[in-house]
Amino acid sequence: MSESSQHLFSDRVDLMDNPKANRVGFVSRLARRQTRQKYGLALVEGPQAVRELIRFQPSAIRDLYVDLEMASGTYRELVLAAREVTDFVHPCTRQVVDHMSSDAQGIVAVAELEKLPFHPVEQLQLDAGMAVLLARVQDPGNAGTMVRLADAFGAQAVLASAGTADLSSPKVLRSAVGSSFHLPTYTGQFSDLVVPLKKAGFKILGTSGEGAISFDDLIDAATLGTDPELAPVLEGPLVWVFGNEAKGLAPDEAELCDYLVSIPMYGQAESLNVASAAAVVLSGTARIRHRQ
Amino acid sequence: MSESSQHLFSDRVDLMDNPKANRVGFVSRLARRQTRQKYGLALVEGPQAVRELIRFQPSAIRDLYVDLEMASGTYRELVLAAREVTDFVHPCTRQVVDHMSSDAQGIVAVAELEKLPFHPVEQLQLDAGMAVLLARVQDPGNAGTMVRLADAFGAQAVLASAGTADLSSPKVLRSAVGSSFHLPTYTGQFSDLVVPLKKAGFKILGTSGEGAISFDDLIDAATLGTDPELAPVLEGPLVWVFGNEAKGLAPDEAELCDYLVSIPMYGQAESLNVASAAAVVLSGTARIRHRQ
Repeated sequence: MSESSQHLFSDRVDLMDNPKANRVGFVSRLARRQTRQKYGLALVEGPQAVRELIRFQPSAIRDLYVDLEMASGTYRELVLAAREVTDFVHPCTRQVVDHMSSDAQGIVAVAELEKLPFHPVEQLQLDAGMAVLLARVQDPGNAGTMVRLADAFGAQAVLASAGTADLSSPKVLRSAVGSSFHLPTYTGQFSDLVVPLKKAGFKILGTSGEGAISFDDLIDAATLGTDPELAPVLEGPLVWVFGNEAKGLAPDEAELCDYLVSIPMYGQAESLNVASAAAVVLSGTARIRHRQ
Repeated sequence: MSESSQHLFSDRVDLMDNPKANRVGFVSRLARRQTRQKYGLALVEGPQAVRELIRFQPSAIRDLYVDLEMASGTYRELVLAAREVTDFVHPCTRQVVDHMSSDAQGIVAVAELEKLPFHPVEQLQLDAGMAVLLARVQDPGNAGTMVRLADAFGAQAVLASAGTADLSSPKVLRSAVGSSFHLPTYTGQFSDLVVPLKKAGFKILGTSGEGAISFDDLIDAATLGTDPELAPVLEGPLVWVFGNEAKGLAPDEAELCDYLVSIPMYGQAESLNVASAAAVVLSGTARIRHRQ
Protein backbone atom coordinates (compact mmCIF):
# COMPACT_ATOMS: atom_id res chain seq x y z
CA MET A 1 0.00 0.00 0.00
CA SER A 2 1.55 3.30 -1.04
CA GLU A 3 1.84 6.13 1.44
CA SER A 4 -0.80 8.31 -0.18
CA SER A 5 -3.39 5.54 -0.41
CA GLN A 6 -2.67 4.56 3.23
CA HIS A 7 -3.49 8.11 4.15
CA LEU A 8 -6.65 8.11 2.03
CA PHE A 9 -7.98 4.98 3.68
CA SER A 10 -6.34 5.32 7.12
CA ASP A 11 -9.59 4.55 8.94
CA ARG A 12 -10.57 1.63 6.73
CA VAL A 13 -7.89 -0.95 6.16
CA ASP A 14 -10.29 -3.64 4.93
CA LEU A 15 -8.95 -4.03 1.38
CA MET A 16 -11.32 -6.19 -0.68
CA ASP A 17 -9.02 -8.71 -2.35
CA ASN A 18 -11.18 -11.80 -2.89
CA PRO A 19 -12.78 -11.82 -6.36
CA LYS A 20 -14.89 -14.81 -5.28
CA ALA A 21 -16.48 -12.99 -2.34
CA ASN A 22 -20.29 -12.98 -2.31
CA ARG A 23 -20.42 -9.22 -2.53
CA VAL A 24 -18.34 -9.17 -5.71
CA GLY A 25 -20.67 -11.65 -7.39
CA PHE A 26 -23.69 -9.66 -6.21
CA VAL A 27 -22.41 -6.42 -7.73
CA SER A 28 -21.63 -8.13 -11.03
CA ARG A 29 -25.17 -9.55 -11.17
CA LEU A 30 -26.57 -6.00 -11.16
CA ALA A 31 -25.86 -6.13 -14.90
CA ARG A 32 -29.12 -8.13 -15.01
CA ARG A 33 -32.41 -6.28 -15.03
CA GLN A 34 -33.99 -8.91 -12.79
CA THR A 35 -31.39 -8.41 -10.05
CA ARG A 36 -31.62 -4.62 -10.28
CA GLN A 37 -35.38 -4.70 -9.90
CA LYS A 38 -35.37 -7.25 -7.07
CA TYR A 39 -32.97 -5.20 -4.96
CA GLY A 40 -33.80 -1.72 -6.26
CA LEU A 41 -30.17 -1.04 -7.17
CA ALA A 42 -28.25 0.24 -10.17
CA LEU A 43 -24.65 -0.38 -11.23
CA VAL A 44 -22.68 2.68 -12.33
CA GLU A 45 -19.42 1.95 -14.16
CA GLY A 46 -16.35 4.04 -14.91
CA PRO A 47 -14.99 7.36 -13.69
CA GLN A 48 -17.16 9.75 -15.72
CA ALA A 49 -20.54 8.29 -14.74
CA VAL A 50 -19.41 7.81 -11.12
CA ARG A 51 -18.20 11.42 -10.95
CA GLU A 52 -21.57 12.75 -12.12
CA LEU A 53 -23.36 10.41 -9.68
CA ILE A 54 -21.33 11.92 -6.81
CA ARG A 55 -21.97 15.47 -8.03
CA PHE A 56 -25.68 15.21 -8.87
CA GLN A 57 -27.13 12.29 -6.91
CA PRO A 58 -24.92 11.83 -3.84
CA SER A 59 -27.72 10.57 -1.61
CA ALA A 60 -28.35 7.65 -3.98
CA ILE A 61 -24.89 6.14 -3.46
CA ARG A 62 -24.96 2.86 -1.54
CA ASP A 63 -21.36 1.74 -2.10
CA LEU A 64 -18.38 2.76 -4.16
CA TYR A 65 -15.65 0.30 -5.13
CA VAL A 66 -12.31 1.52 -6.37
CA ASP A 67 -8.99 0.02 -7.39
CA LEU A 68 -6.69 0.93 -4.46
CA GLU A 69 -3.80 1.95 -6.67
CA MET A 70 -5.96 4.22 -8.84
CA ALA A 71 -7.60 5.67 -5.70
CA SER A 72 -4.29 7.21 -4.74
CA GLY A 73 -3.47 8.24 -8.29
CA THR A 74 -5.79 8.93 -11.23
CA TYR A 75 -8.95 8.84 -9.12
CA ARG A 76 -7.66 10.66 -6.05
CA GLU A 77 -9.92 13.72 -6.51
CA LEU A 78 -12.88 11.50 -7.29
CA VAL A 79 -12.36 9.43 -4.14
CA LEU A 80 -11.95 12.52 -1.97
CA ALA A 81 -15.23 13.89 -3.38
CA ALA A 82 -16.93 10.54 -2.78
CA ARG A 83 -15.81 10.40 0.84
CA GLU A 84 -17.47 13.73 1.49
CA VAL A 85 -20.85 12.22 0.60
CA THR A 86 -20.57 8.57 1.71
CA ASP A 87 -18.77 6.43 4.29
CA PHE A 88 -18.87 3.45 1.99
CA VAL A 89 -15.88 3.87 -0.30
CA HIS A 90 -14.23 0.46 -0.50
CA PRO A 91 -10.65 0.00 -1.65
CA CYS A 92 -10.29 -3.14 -3.77
CA THR A 93 -7.69 -4.98 -5.77
CA ARG A 94 -7.94 -4.40 -9.51
CA GLN A 95 -8.99 -8.00 -9.95
CA VAL A 96 -11.97 -7.49 -7.65
CA VAL A 97 -13.16 -4.39 -9.53
CA ASP A 98 -12.72 -6.19 -12.85
CA HIS A 99 -14.84 -9.06 -11.55
CA MET A 100 -17.60 -6.61 -10.65
CA SER A 101 -17.63 -5.21 -14.20
CA SER A 102 -15.44 -5.56 -17.25
CA ASP A 103 -16.26 -1.92 -18.03
CA ALA A 104 -15.33 -0.54 -14.60
CA GLN A 105 -12.05 1.11 -15.61
CA GLY A 106 -11.12 0.72 -11.92
CA ILE A 107 -14.22 2.22 -10.32
CA VAL A 108 -17.90 1.30 -9.91
CA ALA A 109 -20.73 2.51 -7.71
CA VAL A 110 -23.91 0.82 -6.55
CA ALA A 111 -26.80 3.28 -6.26
CA GLU A 112 -30.38 3.10 -4.99
CA LEU A 113 -32.82 3.21 -7.89
CA GLU A 114 -35.57 4.99 -6.01
CA LYS A 115 -33.28 7.89 -5.17
CA LEU A 116 -32.18 8.26 -8.79
CA PRO A 117 -34.24 10.38 -11.20
CA PHE A 118 -35.92 7.38 -12.89
CA HIS A 119 -39.66 7.76 -12.50
CA PRO A 120 -42.85 6.04 -13.65
CA VAL A 121 -45.15 8.09 -15.89
CA GLU A 122 -47.51 8.63 -12.94
CA GLN A 123 -44.97 11.08 -11.50
CA LEU A 124 -44.62 13.05 -14.73
CA GLN A 125 -44.27 16.74 -14.00
CA LEU A 126 -43.40 19.02 -16.86
CA ASP A 127 -44.76 22.50 -17.37
CA ALA A 128 -42.61 23.92 -20.11
CA GLY A 129 -39.44 23.46 -22.10
CA MET A 130 -38.38 20.55 -24.29
CA ALA A 131 -38.60 16.82 -23.68
CA VAL A 132 -37.17 13.92 -25.68
CA LEU A 133 -39.26 10.78 -26.09
CA LEU A 134 -37.65 7.43 -26.93
CA ALA A 135 -40.38 5.31 -28.51
CA ARG A 136 -39.11 1.72 -28.32
CA VAL A 137 -35.45 2.64 -28.89
CA GLN A 138 -34.01 -0.78 -28.17
CA ASP A 139 -30.25 -0.47 -28.37
CA PRO A 140 -28.80 0.59 -24.99
CA GLY A 141 -25.96 2.47 -26.71
CA ASN A 142 -28.46 4.51 -28.73
CA ALA A 143 -30.67 5.14 -25.69
CA GLY A 144 -27.73 6.33 -23.57
CA THR A 145 -26.37 8.53 -26.35
CA MET A 146 -29.83 10.10 -26.68
CA VAL A 147 -30.01 10.82 -22.93
CA ARG A 148 -26.62 12.55 -23.30
CA LEU A 149 -27.91 14.55 -26.30
CA ALA A 150 -31.11 15.52 -24.49
CA ASP A 151 -28.94 16.86 -21.66
CA ALA A 152 -26.47 18.61 -23.96
CA PHE A 153 -29.18 20.41 -25.90
CA GLY A 154 -31.15 21.61 -22.92
CA ALA A 155 -34.08 19.18 -22.61
CA GLN A 156 -35.90 19.20 -19.27
CA ALA A 157 -36.75 15.49 -19.29
CA VAL A 158 -36.33 12.20 -21.13
CA LEU A 159 -39.42 10.08 -21.69
CA ALA A 160 -39.18 6.37 -22.53
CA SER A 161 -42.10 4.32 -23.79
CA ALA A 162 -42.58 0.64 -22.99
CA GLY A 163 -40.18 -1.40 -25.15
CA THR A 164 -37.32 1.08 -24.85
CA ALA A 165 -34.02 -0.15 -23.37
CA ASP A 166 -34.00 0.03 -19.54
CA LEU A 167 -32.57 3.50 -18.89
CA SER A 168 -31.12 2.31 -15.57
CA SER A 169 -29.06 -0.47 -17.15
CA PRO A 170 -25.27 -0.23 -16.90
CA LYS A 171 -24.91 -0.01 -20.70
CA VAL A 172 -27.30 2.94 -20.97
CA LEU A 173 -25.67 4.69 -18.00
CA ARG A 174 -22.26 4.18 -19.61
CA SER A 175 -23.33 5.61 -22.99
CA ALA A 176 -25.02 8.54 -21.24
CA VAL A 177 -21.70 9.37 -19.51
CA GLY A 178 -23.40 10.80 -16.41
CA SER A 179 -26.27 12.62 -18.14
CA SER A 180 -28.65 10.03 -16.62
CA PHE A 181 -28.06 11.82 -13.29
CA HIS A 182 -28.62 15.32 -14.68
CA LEU A 183 -32.25 15.23 -15.75
CA PRO A 184 -35.33 13.18 -14.88
CA THR A 185 -36.65 10.29 -16.97
CA TYR A 186 -40.23 9.07 -17.04
CA THR A 187 -41.21 5.63 -18.31
CA GLY A 188 -44.65 4.36 -19.33
CA GLN A 189 -46.99 3.58 -22.20
CA PHE A 190 -46.54 5.87 -25.21
CA SER A 191 -50.02 7.37 -24.99
CA ASP A 192 -49.78 7.84 -21.21
CA LEU A 193 -46.66 9.93 -21.79
CA VAL A 194 -47.90 11.91 -24.78
CA VAL A 195 -51.58 12.62 -24.14
CA PRO A 196 -51.16 14.56 -20.85
CA LEU A 197 -48.36 16.67 -22.35
CA LYS A 198 -50.44 17.35 -25.43
CA LYS A 199 -53.29 18.50 -23.22
CA ALA A 200 -50.85 20.70 -21.30
CA GLY A 201 -49.98 22.52 -24.52
CA PHE A 202 -46.84 20.68 -25.63
CA LYS A 203 -46.39 20.30 -29.38
CA ILE A 204 -45.54 16.69 -30.28
CA LEU A 205 -42.94 16.45 -33.08
CA GLY A 206 -42.15 13.01 -34.47
CA THR A 207 -39.14 12.22 -36.64
CA SER A 208 -39.86 10.05 -39.66
CA GLY A 209 -38.22 9.33 -42.99
CA GLU A 210 -41.65 9.95 -44.54
CA GLY A 211 -42.37 13.11 -42.53
CA ALA A 212 -44.24 15.70 -44.61
CA ILE A 213 -42.30 18.61 -43.10
CA SER A 214 -38.59 19.00 -43.75
CA PHE A 215 -36.53 19.87 -40.69
CA ASP A 216 -34.61 22.40 -42.81
CA ASP A 217 -37.92 24.14 -43.61
CA LEU A 218 -38.66 24.36 -39.88
CA ILE A 219 -35.24 25.93 -39.28
CA ASP A 220 -35.61 28.33 -42.21
CA ALA A 221 -39.08 29.33 -41.06
CA ALA A 222 -37.82 30.06 -37.56
CA THR A 223 -34.68 31.85 -38.75
CA LEU A 224 -35.71 33.64 -41.92
CA GLY A 225 -39.48 33.79 -41.48
CA THR A 226 -39.96 31.92 -44.78
CA ASP A 227 -43.22 30.33 -43.60
CA PRO A 228 -45.22 32.18 -40.90
CA GLU A 229 -47.17 29.04 -40.04
CA LEU A 230 -44.04 26.96 -39.38
CA ALA A 231 -42.05 29.80 -37.80
CA PRO A 232 -43.09 29.20 -34.15
CA VAL A 233 -43.09 25.36 -34.23
CA LEU A 234 -39.70 24.93 -32.55
CA GLU A 235 -40.54 27.41 -29.80
CA GLY A 236 -42.57 26.88 -26.64
CA PRO A 237 -43.27 23.56 -24.91
CA LEU A 238 -42.44 20.65 -27.18
CA VAL A 239 -41.63 16.95 -27.26
CA TRP A 240 -39.34 15.41 -29.86
CA VAL A 241 -40.25 11.77 -30.53
CA PHE A 242 -37.81 9.18 -31.93
CA GLY A 243 -38.96 5.72 -32.98
CA ASN A 244 -37.60 2.21 -33.01
CA GLU A 245 -34.27 1.59 -34.83
CA ALA A 246 -35.65 -0.85 -37.40
CA LYS A 247 -39.28 0.20 -37.69
CA GLY A 248 -39.41 3.90 -36.87
CA LEU A 249 -42.64 5.25 -35.41
CA ALA A 250 -45.61 2.88 -35.33
CA PRO A 251 -48.82 4.16 -36.99
CA ASP A 252 -50.53 4.77 -33.62
CA GLU A 253 -47.47 6.67 -32.38
CA ALA A 254 -47.31 8.80 -35.53
CA GLU A 255 -51.04 9.46 -35.19
CA LEU A 256 -50.49 11.18 -31.83
CA CYS A 257 -47.81 13.52 -33.24
CA ASP A 258 -48.78 17.05 -34.26
CA TYR A 259 -46.01 17.20 -36.87
CA LEU A 260 -44.02 14.49 -38.65
CA VAL A 261 -40.59 15.83 -39.56
CA SER A 262 -38.00 14.37 -41.96
CA ILE A 263 -34.30 15.17 -42.05
CA PRO A 264 -33.10 16.16 -45.54
CA MET A 265 -30.18 14.07 -46.81
CA TYR A 266 -28.01 14.72 -49.83
CA GLY A 267 -26.04 11.55 -50.59
CA GLN A 268 -26.86 7.88 -51.16
CA ALA A 269 -27.59 6.97 -47.53
CA GLU A 270 -31.20 5.94 -47.07
CA SER A 271 -31.52 6.76 -43.41
CA LEU A 272 -29.73 7.87 -40.26
CA ASN A 273 -29.06 5.99 -37.07
CA VAL A 274 -31.67 7.11 -34.50
CA ALA A 275 -29.05 8.73 -32.23
CA SER A 276 -27.66 10.65 -35.23
CA ALA A 277 -31.19 11.85 -36.05
CA ALA A 278 -31.55 13.02 -32.45
CA ALA A 279 -28.24 14.91 -32.66
CA VAL A 280 -29.41 16.69 -35.82
CA VAL A 281 -32.83 17.83 -34.62
CA LEU A 282 -31.97 18.52 -30.97
CA SER A 283 -28.93 20.64 -31.86
CA GLY A 284 -30.90 22.57 -34.50
CA THR A 285 -33.83 23.06 -32.12
CA ALA A 286 -31.54 24.25 -29.31
CA ARG A 287 -29.96 26.78 -31.69
CA ILE A 288 -33.41 28.27 -32.40
CA ARG A 289 -34.59 28.20 -28.77
CA HIS A 290 -31.42 29.75 -27.34
CA ARG A 291 -30.71 32.43 -29.92
CA GLN A 292 -30.40 35.96 -28.66
CA MET B 1 -35.88 -27.36 -50.38
CA SER B 2 -38.99 -25.31 -51.12
CA GLU B 3 -40.21 -24.96 -54.68
CA SER B 4 -39.27 -21.31 -55.03
CA SER B 5 -35.73 -21.79 -53.70
CA GLN B 6 -35.29 -24.82 -55.97
CA HIS B 7 -36.11 -22.59 -58.88
CA LEU B 8 -33.75 -19.85 -57.65
CA PHE B 9 -30.82 -22.26 -57.44
CA SER B 10 -31.84 -24.72 -60.15
CA ASP B 11 -28.36 -24.71 -61.73
CA ARG B 12 -26.48 -25.00 -58.41
CA VAL B 13 -27.67 -27.69 -56.07
CA ASP B 14 -24.53 -27.66 -53.92
CA LEU B 15 -26.07 -26.55 -50.61
CA MET B 16 -23.34 -25.71 -48.11
CA ASP B 17 -24.38 -27.54 -44.96
CA ASN B 18 -21.12 -28.27 -43.13
CA PRO B 19 -20.29 -25.54 -40.57
CA LYS B 20 -16.87 -27.13 -40.09
CA ALA B 21 -15.89 -26.82 -43.75
CA ASN B 22 -12.62 -25.00 -44.39
CA ARG B 23 -14.35 -22.30 -46.37
CA VAL B 24 -16.69 -21.46 -43.48
CA GLY B 25 -13.76 -21.04 -41.12
CA PHE B 26 -11.92 -18.94 -43.68
CA VAL B 27 -14.83 -16.52 -44.08
CA SER B 28 -15.22 -16.17 -40.32
CA ARG B 29 -11.51 -15.34 -39.98
CA LEU B 30 -12.00 -12.30 -42.22
CA ALA B 31 -13.17 -10.62 -39.01
CA ARG B 32 -9.41 -10.32 -38.31
CA ARG B 33 -7.47 -7.50 -39.88
CA GLN B 34 -4.47 -9.77 -40.47
CA THR B 35 -6.51 -12.21 -42.54
CA ARG B 36 -8.18 -9.44 -44.54
CA GLN B 37 -4.83 -7.91 -45.42
CA LYS B 38 -3.17 -11.22 -46.24
CA TYR B 39 -5.88 -12.20 -48.71
CA GLY B 40 -7.04 -8.72 -49.76
CA LEU B 41 -10.63 -9.51 -48.85
CA ALA B 42 -13.40 -7.87 -46.82
CA LEU B 43 -16.37 -9.43 -45.03
CA VAL B 44 -19.71 -7.71 -45.56
CA GLU B 45 -22.47 -8.73 -43.14
CA GLY B 46 -26.24 -8.38 -43.20
CA PRO B 47 -28.83 -7.50 -45.84
CA GLN B 48 -28.42 -3.70 -45.90
CA ALA B 49 -24.66 -3.62 -46.43
CA VAL B 50 -24.81 -6.53 -48.91
CA ARG B 51 -27.56 -4.79 -50.89
CA GLU B 52 -25.48 -1.61 -51.22
CA LEU B 53 -22.43 -3.70 -52.19
CA ILE B 54 -24.43 -5.28 -55.00
CA ARG B 55 -25.79 -1.91 -56.15
CA PHE B 56 -22.62 0.18 -55.93
CA GLN B 57 -19.61 -2.18 -56.09
CA PRO B 58 -20.82 -5.29 -57.95
CA SER B 59 -17.43 -6.04 -59.50
CA ALA B 60 -15.86 -6.38 -56.03
CA ILE B 61 -18.04 -9.33 -55.04
CA ARG B 62 -16.08 -12.59 -54.75
CA ASP B 63 -18.74 -14.76 -53.08
CA LEU B 64 -22.13 -14.34 -51.52
CA TYR B 65 -23.46 -16.77 -48.89
CA VAL B 66 -27.14 -16.83 -48.02
CA ASP B 67 -29.42 -18.87 -45.83
CA LEU B 68 -31.37 -21.01 -48.35
CA GLU B 69 -34.73 -20.47 -46.66
CA MET B 70 -34.29 -16.68 -46.54
CA ALA B 71 -33.07 -16.70 -50.14
CA SER B 72 -36.50 -17.80 -51.25
CA GLY B 73 -38.28 -15.50 -48.82
CA THR B 74 -37.10 -12.24 -47.24
CA TYR B 75 -33.99 -11.99 -49.41
CA ARG B 76 -35.48 -13.11 -52.71
CA GLU B 77 -35.09 -9.72 -54.42
CA LEU B 78 -31.58 -9.36 -53.03
CA VAL B 79 -30.52 -12.78 -54.31
CA LEU B 80 -32.00 -12.11 -57.75
CA ALA B 81 -30.07 -8.83 -57.92
CA ALA B 82 -26.90 -10.61 -56.78
CA ARG B 83 -27.22 -13.28 -59.44
CA GLU B 84 -27.27 -10.61 -62.12
CA VAL B 85 -23.76 -9.50 -61.10
CA THR B 86 -22.07 -12.70 -59.89
CA ASP B 87 -22.19 -16.45 -60.49
CA PHE B 88 -21.04 -17.12 -56.94
CA VAL B 89 -24.18 -16.98 -54.85
CA HIS B 90 -24.00 -19.94 -52.49
CA PRO B 91 -27.06 -21.32 -50.71
CA CYS B 92 -26.20 -22.41 -47.16
CA THR B 93 -27.89 -23.74 -44.09
CA ARG B 94 -28.58 -21.12 -41.44
CA GLN B 95 -25.99 -22.79 -39.21
CA VAL B 96 -23.30 -22.31 -41.85
CA VAL B 97 -24.07 -18.60 -42.28
CA ASP B 98 -24.14 -18.13 -38.50
CA HIS B 99 -20.70 -19.77 -38.28
CA MET B 100 -19.36 -17.31 -40.83
CA SER B 101 -20.58 -14.36 -38.75
CA SER B 102 -22.80 -13.93 -35.73
CA ASP B 103 -23.97 -10.65 -37.30
CA ALA B 104 -24.88 -12.11 -40.69
CA GLN B 105 -28.67 -12.02 -40.30
CA GLY B 106 -28.65 -14.81 -42.88
CA ILE B 107 -26.46 -13.20 -45.54
CA VAL B 108 -22.78 -12.30 -45.96
CA ALA B 109 -20.57 -11.36 -48.87
CA VAL B 110 -16.82 -11.62 -49.39
CA ALA B 111 -15.47 -8.75 -51.47
CA GLU B 112 -12.09 -7.85 -52.97
CA LEU B 113 -10.52 -4.97 -51.09
CA GLU B 114 -8.71 -3.53 -54.06
CA LYS B 115 -11.96 -3.17 -56.01
CA LEU B 116 -13.66 -1.38 -53.12
CA PRO B 117 -13.28 2.40 -52.70
CA PHE B 118 -10.67 2.12 -49.92
CA HIS B 119 -7.56 3.98 -51.06
CA PRO B 120 -4.17 5.00 -49.68
CA VAL B 121 -3.55 8.74 -49.39
CA GLU B 122 -1.30 8.59 -52.49
CA GLN B 123 -4.43 8.18 -54.61
CA LEU B 124 -6.18 11.16 -53.05
CA GLN B 125 -8.17 13.05 -55.67
CA LEU B 126 -10.47 15.77 -54.49
CA ASP B 127 -11.06 19.05 -56.28
CA ALA B 128 -14.05 20.52 -54.51
CA GLY B 129 -16.87 19.81 -52.12
CA MET B 130 -16.75 18.60 -48.55
CA ALA B 131 -14.66 15.85 -46.96
CA VAL B 132 -14.82 14.34 -43.47
CA LEU B 133 -11.56 13.47 -41.72
CA LEU B 134 -11.47 10.94 -38.89
CA ALA B 135 -8.35 11.73 -36.86
CA ARG B 136 -7.71 8.62 -34.76
CA VAL B 137 -11.37 7.79 -34.23
CA GLN B 138 -10.86 4.39 -32.64
CA ASP B 139 -14.27 2.90 -32.04
CA PRO B 140 -15.49 1.01 -35.14
CA GLY B 141 -19.12 1.87 -34.33
CA ASN B 142 -18.29 5.58 -34.27
CA ALA B 143 -16.19 5.34 -37.45
CA GLY B 144 -18.95 3.52 -39.35
CA THR B 145 -21.63 5.91 -38.13
CA MET B 146 -19.46 8.82 -39.31
CA VAL B 147 -19.05 7.27 -42.78
CA ARG B 148 -22.85 7.01 -42.91
CA LEU B 149 -23.20 10.66 -41.81
CA ALA B 150 -20.60 11.83 -44.36
CA ASP B 151 -22.66 10.08 -47.04
CA ALA B 152 -26.01 11.36 -45.76
CA PHE B 153 -24.86 14.97 -45.66
CA GLY B 154 -23.24 15.05 -49.07
CA ALA B 155 -19.51 14.64 -48.43
CA GLN B 156 -17.40 13.65 -51.45
CA ALA B 157 -14.90 11.57 -49.46
CA VAL B 158 -13.97 10.22 -46.04
CA LEU B 159 -10.37 10.60 -44.90
CA ALA B 160 -8.93 8.47 -42.09
CA SER B 161 -5.63 9.23 -40.38
CA ALA B 162 -3.32 6.54 -39.02
CA GLY B 163 -4.75 5.23 -35.74
CA THR B 164 -8.36 5.34 -36.93
CA ALA B 165 -10.37 2.11 -36.90
CA ASP B 166 -9.86 0.05 -40.07
CA LEU B 167 -12.65 1.32 -42.33
CA SER B 168 -12.78 -2.05 -44.11
CA SER B 169 -13.48 -4.03 -40.92
CA PRO B 170 -16.82 -5.82 -40.64
CA LYS B 171 -17.85 -3.71 -37.63
CA VAL B 172 -17.26 -0.43 -39.47
CA LEU B 173 -19.02 -1.72 -42.60
CA ARG B 174 -21.98 -2.79 -40.46
CA SER B 175 -22.29 0.60 -38.70
CA ALA B 176 -21.97 2.37 -42.04
CA VAL B 177 -24.96 0.35 -43.37
CA GLY B 178 -23.67 0.39 -46.96
CA SER B 179 -22.35 3.96 -47.07
CA SER B 180 -18.82 2.51 -47.23
CA PHE B 181 -19.64 1.54 -50.82
CA HIS B 182 -21.07 4.95 -51.77
CA LEU B 183 -18.06 7.25 -51.45
CA PRO B 184 -14.27 6.87 -51.51
CA THR B 185 -12.11 6.75 -48.38
CA TYR B 186 -8.43 7.70 -48.22
CA THR B 187 -6.13 6.57 -45.43
CA GLY B 188 -2.73 7.95 -44.43
CA GLN B 189 -0.81 10.18 -42.04
CA PHE B 190 -2.79 13.20 -40.83
CA SER B 191 -0.48 15.76 -42.43
CA ASP B 192 -0.31 13.82 -45.71
CA LEU B 193 -4.09 14.05 -45.91
CA VAL B 194 -4.47 17.66 -44.82
CA VAL B 195 -1.53 19.54 -46.34
CA PRO B 196 -2.31 18.78 -50.02
CA LEU B 197 -5.97 19.70 -49.54
CA LYS B 198 -5.00 22.90 -47.78
CA LYS B 199 -2.73 23.78 -50.70
CA ALA B 200 -5.59 23.00 -53.08
CA GLY B 201 -7.74 25.60 -51.35
CA PHE B 202 -9.73 23.52 -48.91
CA LYS B 203 -10.55 25.16 -45.58
CA ILE B 204 -9.70 22.84 -42.68
CA LEU B 205 -12.28 23.01 -39.88
CA GLY B 206 -11.51 21.13 -36.67
CA THR B 207 -14.08 20.37 -33.96
CA SER B 208 -12.89 20.97 -30.43
CA GLY B 209 -14.51 21.58 -27.05
CA GLU B 210 -12.12 24.51 -26.73
CA GLY B 211 -12.68 25.85 -30.25
CA ALA B 212 -12.68 29.65 -30.33
CA ILE B 213 -15.50 29.81 -32.88
CA SER B 214 -18.98 28.65 -31.98
CA PHE B 215 -20.70 26.51 -34.60
CA ASP B 216 -23.90 28.48 -34.00
CA ASP B 217 -22.03 31.69 -34.87
CA LEU B 218 -20.89 30.08 -38.14
CA ILE B 219 -24.49 29.15 -38.94
CA ASP B 220 -25.81 32.60 -37.99
CA ALA B 221 -23.10 34.28 -40.05
CA ALA B 222 -23.97 32.18 -43.09
CA THR B 223 -27.74 32.55 -42.64
CA LEU B 224 -28.23 36.03 -41.24
CA GLY B 225 -24.99 37.70 -42.29
CA THR B 226 -24.20 38.54 -38.65
CA ASP B 227 -20.44 38.39 -39.25
CA PRO B 228 -19.17 39.06 -42.80
CA GLU B 229 -15.83 37.41 -42.06
CA LEU B 230 -17.42 34.14 -40.91
CA ALA B 231 -20.25 34.19 -43.45
CA PRO B 232 -18.46 32.22 -46.22
CA VAL B 233 -16.62 29.71 -43.99
CA LEU B 234 -19.06 26.83 -44.56
CA GLU B 235 -19.08 27.35 -48.33
CA GLY B 236 -16.55 26.18 -50.91
CA PRO B 237 -14.08 23.32 -50.56
CA LEU B 238 -13.77 22.26 -46.92
CA VAL B 239 -12.69 19.43 -44.65
CA TRP B 240 -14.36 18.77 -41.29
CA VAL B 241 -11.90 17.14 -38.85
CA PHE B 242 -12.99 15.02 -35.86
CA GLY B 243 -10.49 13.86 -33.21
CA ASN B 244 -10.00 10.86 -30.98
CA GLU B 245 -12.86 9.88 -28.64
CA ALA B 246 -10.91 10.37 -25.41
CA LYS B 247 -8.34 12.96 -26.36
CA GLY B 248 -9.89 15.06 -29.13
CA LEU B 249 -7.51 16.67 -31.61
CA ALA B 250 -3.79 16.48 -30.82
CA PRO B 251 -1.92 19.83 -30.72
CA ASP B 252 -0.20 19.16 -34.08
CA GLU B 253 -3.55 18.24 -35.64
CA ALA B 254 -5.23 21.38 -34.26
CA GLU B 255 -2.27 23.42 -35.54
CA LEU B 256 -3.03 22.41 -39.13
CA CYS B 257 -6.69 23.48 -38.87
CA ASP B 258 -7.72 26.90 -40.20
CA TYR B 259 -10.62 27.12 -37.73
CA LEU B 260 -11.32 25.36 -34.43
CA VAL B 261 -15.05 25.13 -33.88
CA SER B 262 -16.96 24.26 -30.70
CA ILE B 263 -20.55 23.06 -30.48
CA PRO B 264 -22.65 25.12 -28.02
CA MET B 265 -24.35 23.03 -25.34
CA TYR B 266 -27.03 24.12 -22.90
CA GLY B 267 -27.30 21.49 -20.17
CA GLN B 268 -24.94 19.74 -17.77
CA ALA B 269 -23.28 17.43 -20.31
CA GLU B 270 -19.60 18.20 -20.70
CA SER B 271 -19.13 16.86 -24.17
CA LEU B 272 -20.68 14.96 -27.05
CA ASN B 273 -19.84 11.57 -28.46
CA VAL B 274 -17.71 12.12 -31.60
CA ALA B 275 -20.37 10.67 -33.92
CA SER B 276 -22.98 12.98 -32.36
CA ALA B 277 -20.67 15.94 -32.93
CA ALA B 278 -20.33 14.86 -36.58
CA ALA B 279 -24.12 14.65 -36.94
CA VAL B 280 -24.49 18.19 -35.58
CA VAL B 281 -21.90 19.92 -37.76
CA LEU B 282 -22.37 17.90 -40.95
CA SER B 283 -26.16 18.39 -40.93
CA GLY B 284 -25.80 22.11 -40.21
CA THR B 285 -23.15 22.49 -42.88
CA ALA B 286 -25.23 20.61 -45.46
CA ARG B 287 -28.20 22.89 -44.70
CA ILE B 288 -26.06 25.94 -45.54
CA ARG B 289 -24.43 24.41 -48.62
CA HIS B 290 -27.66 23.11 -50.14
CA ARG B 291 -29.98 26.03 -49.47
CA GLN B 292 -31.74 27.53 -52.43
